[in-house]
Amino acid sequence: MNDAKTELGRKILRIKRKQGMKWTEVAARIGMSPTWTCALCMGQMSAEPHHAQGIADLFGLDEEEQATLCEIPYRGAQPLPPTDPLIYRFYELVLVYGTTWKEMIHEEFGDGIMSAIDYDMALERQPDQKGDRVRITMSGKFLPYKRY
Amino acid sequence: MNDAKTELGRKILRIKRKQGMKWTEVAARIGMSPTWTCALCMGQMSAEPHHAQGIADLFGLDEEEQATLCEIPYRGAQPLPPTDPLIYRFYELVLVYGTTWKEMIHEEFGDGIMSAIDYDMALERQPDQKGDRVRITMSGKFLPYKRY
Amino acid sequence: MNDAKTELGRKILRIKRKQGMKWTEVAARIGMSPTWTCALCMGQMSAEPHHAQGIADLFGLDEEEQATLCEIPYRGAQPLPPTDPLIYRFYELVLVYGTTWKEMIHEEFGDGIMSAIDYDMALERQPDQKGDRVRITMSGKFLPYKRY
Amino acid sequence: MNDAKTELGRKILRIKRKQGMKWTEVAARIGMSPTWTCALCMGQMSAEPHHAQGIADLFGLDEEEQATLCEIPYRGAQPLPPTDPLIYRFYELVLVYGTTWKEMIHEEFGDGIMSAIDYDMALERQPDQKGDRVRITMSGKFLPYKRY
Amino acid sequence: MNDAKTELGRKILRIKRKQGMKWTEVAARIGMSPTWTCALCMGQMSAEPHHAQGIADLFGLDEEEQATLCEIPYRGAQPLPPTDPLIYRFYELVLVYGTTWKEMIHEEFGDGIMSAIDYDMALERQPDQKGDRVRITMSGKFLPYKRY
Amino acid sequence: MNDAKTELGRKILRIKRKQGMKWTEVAARIGMSPTWTCALCMGQMSAEPHHAQGIADLFGLDEEEQATLCEIPYRGAQPLPPTDPLIYRFYELVLVYGTTWKEMIHEEFGDGIMSAIDYDMALERQPDQKGDRVRITMSGKFLPYKRY
Amino acid sequence: MNDAKTELGRKILRIKRKQGMKWTEVAARIGMSPTWTCALCMGQMSAEPHHAQGIADLFGLDEEEQATLCEIPYRGAQPLPPTDPLIYRFYELVLVYGTTWKEMIHEEFGDGIMSAIDYDMALERQPDQKGDRVRITMSGKFLPYKRY
Amino acid sequence: MNDAKTELGRKILRIKRKQGMKWTEVAARIGMSPTWTCALCMGQMSAEPHHAQGIADLFGLDEEEQATLCEIPYRGAQPLPPTDPLIYRFYELVLVYGTTWKEMIHEEFGDGIMSAIDYDMALERQPDQKGDRVRITMSGKFLPYKRY
Amino acid sequence: MNDAKTELGRKILRIKRKQGMKWTEVAARIGMSPTWTCALCMGQMSAEPHHAQGIADLFGLDEEEQATLCEIPYRGAQPLPPTDPLIYRFYELVLVYGTTWKEMIHEEFGDGIMSAIDYDMALERQPDQKGDRVRITMSGKFLPYKRY
Amino acid sequence: MNDAKTELGRKILRIKRKQGMKWTEVAARIGMSPTWTCALCMGQMSAEPHHAQGIADLFGLDEEEQATLCEIPYRGAQPLPPTDPLIYRFYELVLVYGTTWKEMIHEEFGDGIMSAIDYDMALERQPDQKGDRVRITMSGKFLPYKRY
Repeated sequence: MNDAKTELGRKILRIKRKQGMKWTEVAARIGMSPTWTCALCMGQMSAEPHHAQGIADLFGLDEEEQATLCEIPYRGAQPLPPTDPLIYRFYELVLVYGTTWKEMIHEEFGDGIMSAIDYDMALERQPDQKGDRVRITMSGKFLPYKRY
Repeated sequence: MNDAKTELGRKILRIKRKQGMKWTEVAARIGMSPTWTCALCMGQMSAEPHHAQGIADLFGLDEEEQATLCEIPYRGAQPLPPTDPLIYRFYELVLVYGTTWKEMIHEEFGDGIMSAIDYDMALERQPDQKGDRVRITMSGKFLPYKRY
Repeated sequence: MNDAKTELGRKILRIKRKQGMKWTEVAARIGMSPTWTCALCMGQMSAEPHHAQGIADLFGLDEEEQATLCEIPYRGAQPLPPTDPLIYRFYELVLVYGTTWKEMIHEEFGDGIMSAIDYDMALERQPDQKGDRVRITMSGKFLPYKRY
Repeated sequence: MNDAKTELGRKILRIKRKQGMKWTEVAARIGMSPTWTCALCMGQMSAEPHHAQGIADLFGLDEEEQATLCEIPYRGAQPLPPTDPLIYRFYELVLVYGTTWKEMIHEEFGDGIMSAIDYDMALERQPDQKGDRVRITMSGKFLPYKRY
Repeated sequence: MNDAKTELGRKILRIKRKQGMKWTEVAARIGMSPTWTCALCMGQMSAEPHHAQGIADLFGLDEEEQATLCEIPYRGAQPLPPTDPLIYRFYELVLVYGTTWKEMIHEEFGDGIMSAIDYDMALERQPDQKGDRVRITMSGKFLPYKRY
Repeated sequence: MNDAKTELGRKILRIKRKQGMKWTEVAARIGMSPTWTCALCMGQMSAEPHHAQGIADLFGLDEEEQATLCEIPYRGAQPLPPTDPLIYRFYELVLVYGTTWKEMIHEEFGDGIMSAIDYDMALERQPDQKGDRVRITMSGKFLPYKRY
Repeated sequence: MNDAKTELGRKILRIKRKQGMKWTEVAARIGMSPTWTCALCMGQMSAEPHHAQGIADLFGLDEEEQATLCEIPYRGAQPLPPTDPLIYRFYELVLVYGTTWKEMIHEEFGDGIMSAIDYDMALERQPDQKGDRVRITMSGKFLPYKRY
Repeated sequence: MNDAKTELGRKILRIKRKQGMKWTEVAARIGMSPTWTCALCMGQMSAEPHHAQGIADLFGLDEEEQATLCEIPYRGAQPLPPTDPLIYRFYELVLVYGTTWKEMIHEEFGDGIMSAIDYDMALERQPDQKGDRVRITMSGKFLPYKRY
Repeated sequence: MNDAKTELGRKILRIKRKQGMKWTEVAARIGMSPTWTCALCMGQMSAEPHHAQGIADLFGLDEEEQATLCEIPYRGAQPLPPTDPLIYRFYELVLVYGTTWKEMIHEEFGDGIMSAIDYDMALERQPDQKGDRVRITMSGKFLPYKRY
Repeated sequence: MNDAKTELGRKILRIKRKQGMKWTEVAARIGMSPTWTCALCMGQMSAEPHHAQGIADLFGLDEEEQATLCEIPYRGAQPLPPTDPLIYRFYELVLVYGTTWKEMIHEEFGDGIMSAIDYDMALERQPDQKGDRVRITMSGKFLPYKRY
């Protein structure tokens, strides 16, 4: 159901590569974070009209493509377990740290979960003498399990 | 192959609950971070002897149990996709954000991955008027794909 | 990890059957809804101490069993697709109505989801001349997808 | 086998979006409930000719498309487990509440199931100070397991 | 959850083999059909008390085992696809004849299904010169898909 | 490998629907049973030339399409478990009654299977005051397991 | 359901190894082929009483174990795809030669199958200068697909 | 990666059917066995140029198609478990006889496997009063597991 | 997402076959190893511009195809378990030797892994009287599991 | 079927750890390579009696345990995809390099495979200023695909 969004994502990647643009620049243009902006272009988020307008201006998209950016996607199209090593490492973290997250969040907050919807994330380069590091900061609202 | 480490994990959880101890306290005792300490107790990490000693002191473990803490585990025993909602939300992040991580890390660092081995993580409570948030900070060394 | 909660659930079912008690009666005793009370006894919810106390009084449970009721479970232990016809019908509803839920909730609320955490449910008999019906009422908080 | 119905569904969604029409309005035109009407347009139900006529009038469909609305579908085309978070939450309810439904329905009705065929459902907005809620009401005929 | 019913099934098979009894004889004793009686003993049906009593008399079962016969099972415990050739042939029929059943039932009855709950079945030997045949007669109530 | 047979099946269904023809009528024309005739048209059986001729006359098929009807198919193309509720109910019968078939056939015939190849089947409407029923009669040759 | 047959198989293997007996010797004792005899002992076939008697004499089995040899098994308990290289090679033959068998058998016999029930097989050493070979001869009755 | 080989196989089957040719005739023309020749045409083997030339002469293939016959395939494209009954029976043999092959080959040859690479096979009709049989003779080199 | 890289790989294979070129020659032209060069052409690595230029010169690729060689792939597109016997043997090594690698690497290096990113590999022919051998040399950096 | 070999493997690991012995020392004692010796102890190889004797002497094993070392295993018991990161990296190599192995081996040797049976392997530490490396050398006999 996301064919249009996926195809648009590929088109944006091609243009972006030719223009040598960066996600931070794209994000700055629409006043949003680079992570969300990238996820939007990859077809995993839905834009409000002014976001779509800004991105269309940057990449020369037509009206139908703007509408596509605003559509709410059927999220999560990629197959799991991931075959790509970069994506697999995150999957591996779930395998290795799943129970740790469970014990630590329950200890601190009680019964409930970290929301993946009321959620934001940032990614940055962390300089390090032994080799620079990828630093990812996630923040999700704690939702207590309702007792009724 | 991890039966001993898994069973020891359950025993530690039972004792910890009765003693009302927190992971930060356990971690402080052995001079390590709470996340790693919790992962160790959950059977996903291998301790050095002095860590095992510290934990044994806290929870009253015998020598064989200390040796078990030092053993290198067959990691990642839990089934995926996770059926537990808390753990599933992290799995969902891989589904939704997998391509975003891929595009952003490659843009910033070139071809390579974020290590899940030379990796550390912290989890903390982020106070928020609309409801407190879970904040997770991950840091993994960037490993460039070797061209040879 | 839920062995204790699952085993306790079976024990409660056995006692409940012998006592001829109903979930509404159990629920009334602890001042909660029958659905949540049943889910708690089936090992899928975590009780507060006074709930555990009430249930222990009813079924003659000891202290360790009360503690088990209070533990936060690794939820969702049953295999999917369900082999049991009663449970399968709910699975079938996801197959048949999944896209309908998606379109209707997005139309009414915009991009986001119905929470399965801040969620409650009731089940009742709906008398009907052509054969009585099962009536289930679900209510979950709408969570808007965060744009950041 | 449902290619025609699925493709027609996408076309209807596109037109509906442009016309800014709502499922309640579409449903009112054919005298049916919004849920069933939406499910029909998503390719999961079969229309009687006058329903197909009414929908064709609204969206400007041709005769072959009307016939497509009347065809009985091979239902349930979407993959499970769902990757989309909104649909997944319903799947999660089966994981968490499957045994609860089983115990409560058997207690009230005896051995049998809730029909997913002689079944109807409504979805509405439930205003709430702490955030509006999605309210879903399901009603399925109880079918006793035949003893013969 | 059906451990008790499965184990009881094995016990009944052992006793039945020793006594050289046939399903028709067991069925006659409780006034039910051989198919249902066999399915009951295999742990897939729930008995009424007088059925359980009759079977207990035949096989020398105690009170708890009678109660087990009356319990409503979590049905369908065997793995699919079946590895056993006899059971696999029925699975193969679904592969080969699935679309035929769909087209023929819809042609005759319209949109709906054949119930597997309000359902009965008989199995008999059909003498044949070229080799006797297994004859199975199934009868399930037609349930029309509700339009609402 | 069955693309041609599957596509031809869809074409036949379209024509049959327009002509308002029934499987019994199609079957009568070629002197075969309705079930086999339907299965043939659905691409699951191979015709002899005179069957193909008869069906071609009825539906206006060309010579290549006749040849396609005569081809031996790679059978069983539909995915299992079935997502369609009508087909799923037959799959459910295998889950629920698999062991019953096994015990009853072995009791009556000894070690062996019911053939799904030397097999025929009929489907008819069984009038019933409480709602008409689908009646399916299967007959398969018993094949004894060879001891050698 | 085959626990008894599987366990008996392991016991027979242990005794056979200690006695240094060969399958040809076991088979000769009961007047059957080595392949069938081995399959019987591995729990995949059902013996007639005199076969069971002969094997019991050889290996010192008691009466209950003889009865176990006579029981009809739930066949095919090993997991597929096989992880063992020897067994995997046969699985690979199905992958590589499946379509070849299909085309060649249909060319020679028409529509139908090679029976795996009315089937026998022999295995022998085929001396060869470049290294001895395993020679397997299979013979299965051709069963024509019934047209009715 | 085998699209060209698979498509060529379908073309050869179509031509062969029209010409009424048999695999033995095709094989005779290139001086190879019918089984290997059929497997080659089905896209599972690689030809030497003179084989490709011979087959091209018979079926009127062009130079590119000859090259395709010579290409080494990515073998084993069909899905397992097979849905086609003819191919499934061979899969079933692996389920039923897997452990028998293992025990008998090890008894005769010691630790090792039967090669599926240095392997040949023949298929013939075995006349039989009770119905003709399919006779398959396999021969694979025994490869001892290296100890080093 | 790798469609372009995969398709380019097929084109390169076709040209290479016609030109009778070897991977060692291709590799020599760009000053890299044959293994990496082959992996690059198969769409699993990303080239630097001068590598892409060299390969374009050899095979007559245009500018867009050079850009495709430089793109970072979504790696690992082939399905596992492999159906092709050559690739399967490597998969089998993981099944058979997985625990051996684990024990030996941990014994020598402690807790950690062999990197598959900072990794190189060579493949050569190893002449041998009993039949030449494939010799593969892998070298991956040891990465110690971080304790923090 | 390998329970005894697996359990013996765990016992050997425990003893070896206490004795502080290395695989090279164990291997030297029986005159075999460390890799094969480790694989044998992990239950994946079969020993000749004098190997079993040597290992028994080292670790104090009894006669039955020696016999267990000599038994031919059902190989490959660990689940794939591997959840353990160290083992997963080898699985990933199959994903990333599978097609490269296929193209390079065919180019050098023609149609055939690298044997995983007539196969040996060595593992060593490769000192490196930027961090030591794991060096693995594999050697498998090339087996040409038989044309017959």
